[in-house]
Amino acid sequence: MSIYARRGVSAQKEEVHQAIRQLDQGLYPHAFCKMYPDFAGGDPNFVNIMHADGAGTKSILAYLYWKETGDVSVWKGIARDAVAMNLDDLLCVGVTDNLLFSSTIDRNKLLIGGDILEAVIEGTREYFQLLAEYGVNIQYLGGETADVGDVVRTIAVNGTMMARWPKSKIITNQAIAAGQVIVGLASSGTCAYEPSYNSGLGSNGLTSARHDVLSKHYATHYPESFEPGLSEEVVYVGHHRLTDNYTVDGIEHSIGQLLLSPTRTYAPVICQLLREHPDVVKGMIHCSGGGQTKCMKYLPGPMKVVKDNLFPPPPIFSLIQQNSGADDREMYQVFNMGHRMEIFAEETAAGKIIDLAAQFGVDAKVVGKVQPSDKKELTLQLPEKSIHFEY
Amino acid sequence: MSIYARRGVSAQKEEVHQAIRQLDQGLYPHAFCKMYPDFAGGDPNFVNIMHADGAGTKSILAYLYWKETGDVSVWKGIARDAVAMNLDDLLCVGVTDNLLFSSTIDRNKLLIGGDILEAVIEGTREYFQLLAEYGVNIQYLGGETADVGDVVRTIAVNGTMMARWPKSKIITNQAIAAGQVIVGLASSGTCAYEPSYNSGLGSNGLTSARHDVLSKHYATHYPESFEPGLSEEVVYVGHHRLTDNYTVDGIEHSIGQLLLSPTRTYAPVICQLLREHPDVVKGMIHCSGGGQTKCMKYLPGPMKVVKDNLFPPPPIFSLIQQNSGADDREMYQVFNMGHRMEIFAEETAAGKIIDLAAQFGVDAKVVGKVQPSDKKELTLQLPEKSIHFEY
Repeated sequence: MSIYARRGVSAQKEEVHQAIRQLDQGLYPHAFCKMYPDFAGGDPNFVNIMHADGAGTKSILAYLYWKETGDVSVWKGIARDAVAMNLDDLLCVGVTDNLLFSSTIDRNKLLIGGDILEAVIEGTREYFQLLAEYGVNIQYLGGETADVGDVVRTIAVNGTMMARWPKSKIITNQAIAAGQVIVGLASSGTCAYEPSYNSGLGSNGLTSARHDVLSKHYATHYPESFEPGLSEEVVYVGHHRLTDNYTVDGIEHSIGQLLLSPTRTYAPVICQLLREHPDVVKGMIHCSGGGQTKCMKYLPGPMKVVKDNLFPPPPIFSLIQQNSGADDREMYQVFNMGHRMEIFAEETAAGKIIDLAAQFGVDAKVVGKVQPSDKKELTLQLPEKSIHFEY
Repeated sequence: MSIYARRGVSAQKEEVHQAIRQLDQGLYPHAFCKMYPDFAGGDPNFVNIMHADGAGTKSILAYLYWKETGDVSVWKGIARDAVAMNLDDLLCVGVTDNLLFSSTIDRNKLLIGGDILEAVIEGTREYFQLLAEYGVNIQYLGGETADVGDVVRTIAVNGTMMARWPKSKIITNQAIAAGQVIVGLASSGTCAYEPSYNSGLGSNGLTSARHDVLSKHYATHYPESFEPGLSEEVVYVGHHRLTDNYTVDGIEHSIGQLLLSPTRTYAPVICQLLREHPDVVKGMIHCSGGGQTKCMKYLPGPMKVVKDNLFPPPPIFSLIQQNSGADDREMYQVFNMGHRMEIFAEETAAGKIIDLAAQFGVDAKVVGKVQPSDKKELTLQLPEKSIHFEY
């Protein structure tokens, strides 16, 4: 049993796929999000999408950081995580504007006060204001905040997005084909719409990252931050406190800030890309749960994905790996390891995408290519080793 | 500090209202749900609504019942609760058809297996099939199921509904006025679209109901079912096991079945009512959190609501009150006590509503009236006492 499974999480979500097998899976089997007929508008040229996601266990990191530093503003970052995890999934099907959003917040009122609710809700509102400046308009139509301390140990921050979008502008991944290249958009750094350095971690693998990096101090002092039935061997087995410093490119950051960097959205980049060059994108993958293997779920047929020019993993991933001792195979299956968005395109179009990302301060490069094959397979060619997956 | 507050819940949600005060509150200040311009369709004659709600702590009751009886089907009822709590809110603004639904399920994978996820999702799907037979069409557009055992002790089942609806058919509560009567639709009994007796409890006040009715057995054997920081004096202070029997109208039911009766939706009744008699409904209130005082939040101006012909409280509420010793004032503020939906109408139209409800086996009657006043006030005239509220 993997350490991941022993912590009660599963990167592949086999049970969930089994549970939903009787549901309508939508119009386009390989699209990143399920798309349905335009029930809301009745127009055969439109699709409807409802998408749900959230900050997951990253809210626990925010809780611990807030408890240790008193800094309530960290909760605004959790709001951004909940939004970006939805929004960046929707970008992958071509939706970049005119979205509706509703939040669902479940809290333990004994531990989570009104000031935190206010930070989450205000953080969401401010984030939408920022995104609107880049042409990404999201309407905040309210939501539900429930006091359910007997269910929730601390707080769960989730959101649901709805889009009605013209079929002429959707991306179904059906056009992904051998011969194309993959442009990766970096998950770390400081881009034009971020106020400070982003570690690149995003909001996936946070259960692992938290337990692997943080020390037993957190098990002792914050029993409300983990399931008590977990084996002691998998609970807070790292060496750090959130307030410890870690140097990135010569600059010191607290480990808390690195772990809590709000998930970078690529919406400003993708919005402009699809407006200026609507035909270059043949497919798009948000490297969320499943990390660098995520693309394999959405290939439209047998082909081989070779990623042989990946970004060097940002320092946060080295920190996690140093603490956990996980091998590269596991790291690349759980974390994005450097780019959280990848665009499939013809080789001749790659330059346009890279140049446009650069305008927003987002590093981008060709990270791989698609080759012919008689099965779905993936090779991650790292500097010193090759990792292979078959599906 | 009330026992309700000591359990970390608040019927009035003061902190939530404070936290959302800067959000756009929608087009119609007195409407039961927030309604917004038609961002999705751009038609000035339509509104958009996104609504989020869930089964709350009722999922804990399902967990305990499932643990003690092995009956997985109880989770299908939780699915119905999560749907009905959304749907019946939307009924109050006149939305009865063409809805979109997305579910958000957070689970502790160590305790909640794939069979339970499947029951929740299949229960949702089956419920939509049933409702479609009554002209209430809800499209299930997927959702998110997350393994977050460090956040969620057992399982949280939430859902979000989206509607795009013509302004010509909405109900804003603006037409509620002195001189009208209030028709209440019973929350208990067995109506035409329910397979068995419904206790009428719904999905509000379940934290209280669970702790007040169930015995310390559950604190001892299921520590995962409550917040460990709660005072022992408020945790499982009742006298019963879920498998104990309780007689209602000469028929024995287990207390678990009574507490877990899936929330009755009034959608089939309201759908037909608004189709056949669109002009009779002047306002509509779902007596959810806040119980029989809920209407006071939505009155369009100073007036006095007098409810002087309420249904006798169904036996489940007597059971709760016997165990908790709560006074009537508190009971009527937390629980629906007999009717969970109320329709404001001219006296001459009441008969039409009552007759139509009867066609579905839903008891209905005039439970009260609206009188002139210089302030917003409410009197609940019970057989032996009067309870007064001012706002």
